[in-house]
Amino acid sequence: MKIPIDSARLEKEIDELSLISEQPAPVVTRILFSEADLRGRDYVKNLFRQAGLSVREDAVGNIFARWQGLDNTAPAVATGSHIDAIPNAGKFDGVVGVLGAIEAIRSLQKARFVPRTSIECIIFTAEEPTRFGLGCLGSRLLAGTLSSERIAALRDKEGHDLEHWRKQARLSGGDPAAVRIAQDTYAGFVELHIEQGPVLEQRNLAIGIVERIAAPASLRLQLTGVGGHAGGVLMPGRRDALLAGAEIALAVEQAALTSGSPDTVATTGVFRIEPGAVNSVPCHATLEIDLRDTQLASRDAALIKIETAAAEICRHRAIGLQLERVNVDAPAICDAALVQLVADICVELKTPFTKMISRAYHDSLFMARICPTTMIFIPCRGGVSHRPDEYSSPGQICDGVAVLAETLRRLAS
Amino acid sequence: MKIPIDSARLEKEIDELSLISEQPAPVVTRILFSEADLRGRDYVKNLFRQAGLSVREDAVGNIFARWQGLDNTAPAVATGSHIDAIPNAGKFDGVVGVLGAIEAIRSLQKARFVPRTSIECIIFTAEEPTRFGLGCLGSRLLAGTLSSERIAALRDKEGHDLEHWRKQARLSGGDPAAVRIAQDTYAGFVELHIEQGPVLEQRNLAIGIVERIAAPASLRLQLTGVGGHAGGVLMPGRRDALLAGAEIALAVEQAALTSGSPDTVATTGVFRIEPGAVNSVPCHATLEIDLRDTQLASRDAALIKIETAAAEICRHRAIGLQLERVNVDAPAICDAALVQLVADICVELKTPFTKMISRAYHDSLFMARICPTTMIFIPCRGGVSHRPDEYSSPGQICDGVAVLAETLRRLAS
Repeated sequence: MKIPIDSARLEKEIDELSLISEQPAPVVTRILFSEADLRGRDYVKNLFRQAGLSVREDAVGNIFARWQGLDNTAPAVATGSHIDAIPNAGKFDGVVGVLGAIEAIRSLQKARFVPRTSIECIIFTAEEPTRFGLGCLGSRLLAGTLSSERIAALRDKEGHDLEHWRKQARLSGGDPAAVRIAQDTYAGFVELHIEQGPVLEQRNLAIGIVERIAAPASLRLQLTGVGGHAGGVLMPGRRDALLAGAEIALAVEQAALTSGSPDTVATTGVFRIEPGAVNSVPCHATLEIDLRDTQLASRDAALIKIETAAAEICRHRAIGLQLERVNVDAPAICDAALVQLVADICVELKTPFTKMISRAYHDSLFMARICPTTMIFIPCRGGVSHRPDEYSSPGQICDGVAVLAETLRRLAS
Repeated sequence: MKIPIDSARLEKEIDELSLISEQPAPVVTRILFSEADLRGRDYVKNLFRQAGLSVREDAVGNIFARWQGLDNTAPAVATGSHIDAIPNAGKFDGVVGVLGAIEAIRSLQKARFVPRTSIECIIFTAEEPTRFGLGCLGSRLLAGTLSSERIAALRDKEGHDLEHWRKQARLSGGDPAAVRIAQDTYAGFVELHIEQGPVLEQRNLAIGIVERIAAPASLRLQLTGVGGHAGGVLMPGRRDALLAGAEIALAVEQAALTSGSPDTVATTGVFRIEPGAVNSVPCHATLEIDLRDTQLASRDAALIKIETAAAEICRHRAIGLQLERVNVDAPAICDAALVQLVADICVELKTPFTKMISRAYHDSLFMARICPTTMIFIPCRGGVSHRPDEYSSPGQICDGVAVLAETLRRLAS
């Protein structure tokens, strides 16, 4: 059935949440546990409560809003996404999957649906890697993929650890690894999200159903050279950390271009130098590199190529290299039955769709490890994301919410 | 005559001033009109007053400490340097020329020297370009080389102008260009400074007398590409500002290496990208480039090479380029008679010396435009500067101060 969606209310809430930002509109910036992120969380928790959902927050700030079903013992059906946003981002990434899920639940309530199993909407902590350089922190912890040692070693740019930020967020203490949830907790997880790519728009389709999520890896490189006065140190004696970093950034691009797979993407997204003064030879550089592919083999080949090039460049330039694999995740295969269910619903609702892969990675990558998972993509203009001009129309969002609502209805019946 | 210098007192004052820093010891950071810079200025003004000098500060914060001579009408003899320090610097750059000058004056006073012409010690405002990306701000203004429009356009990273920082420093208002001084104000200017290069140490010499100062130029480049999600945007569609910046930084290095002159040095000292998140394609990069040479012709040839390469790289990568020549200064020729006077003094004091060129640039570059000028260099360990481990020994500093004191004595007699 096509469940009616209150598009205007949803748009209003997306706009309101976008104004809770560390930077003025239209820029959205909500870094994990910043004041804006905390206010954003409060805003959404309030919506959950207004919709009659019971709200629980775990020790790392994952938020669970539950619509209690008739059968208290059956595993719940879950949906959700994230509301944190990288610096200079837009208002739809993540948010559509959270506020859209609330709208789906409210629409089902209005349609007098009574769920047999409970429905939960999850806001995951730090899908974006801005704070700690590690994405999907909350869902990784729920899936039990991070050791306590690894968690304790997390540091942000200022050297603060997760414990510091949990205190800022007034979260309870205890071992963050203990938020892990059991394999049979959820009967399924469906995440609504903007595509962050151009496929749906180009093919004029309303829905993409995700069959696989690209395999991501990220590296952090610390390059240590020798500084000095930009006027006083002649060229032959230099050990300039920036120049090694520049060569590595270009090698990262080459590794993607020559991987043999058109789906390999590699990005040097962080590039910081010290001391960063015009008349001083850079003595230190920090690079963070993001590498993804739909195929594990070409992703891993590119990874090796980048690591080899970095070592070679640093040896050649006499630069000290410290290379850390921040994460090297396997791709996720979505649940075939769930994908087919969503496809059947699209056919029934006469909503044009395609099955596709997700190049961006999402909390679904980790949820897929603990329950049947898929994602519902909607188009975004120009395939643009992580920018203030990121845009999906009210109609496009509405189509996604309608498919999500019907999917939740079927799963919870 | 060899005037006795109180080396222990001078060392103590150098150490005390080094502790007035934005970062903990041994790091010295004093950016123009920061709280540390203002406290450093107060520290030195206090020493001036203790030495019986009259202290005057102009509208941009150049500080003039005057030892009144018998002849009130004759042009004064000047010395001095700067006390601002780039991030992560050491304690001798600039400071030796200020505290060393005070020690030279105190030594002359103790030796009961009575100056015929007045002697002035100048602390120049912002020799380092950290705040506004433009070095030698104070001496440029004294020499009248900056227009009021150029001054009004100065902005720091946060967008603050000179007016903002003058207010922070509680300086009087008025047109900063009006601090310009007349050509006959000083009979001569002699700046004591660490070499910031390895020549004196390698040749085991105590003193370098500067005959020429290398011709500096600096560029600021704003690169504008197209951002997007690091997972979603495939490689062929990318317009990554960081990659263009990386190619330009390598072209800067090449321009210096292939200039035909072994004295050409070129450095990309500032390299900032936006948004600077690991999973986001960099949409913007800011580069600041420093280029110097002892020869104007090879310097200018390298400058053209860099500008041409930047334009070509940005065209190739479809990146918007805004290129600003922040400063393109001519080299300074020091006063031959003054250089010979210092050489004669070195012979007389049996202090081993050489005549040399300065690769680093200094306030003397601009003072040379308005009065006979030279510099007295002393060795620094390994030629290292702009780093916390920058070092000149008490004995090396003492040699420099003794030569400076005798030079001031001759000029003021």
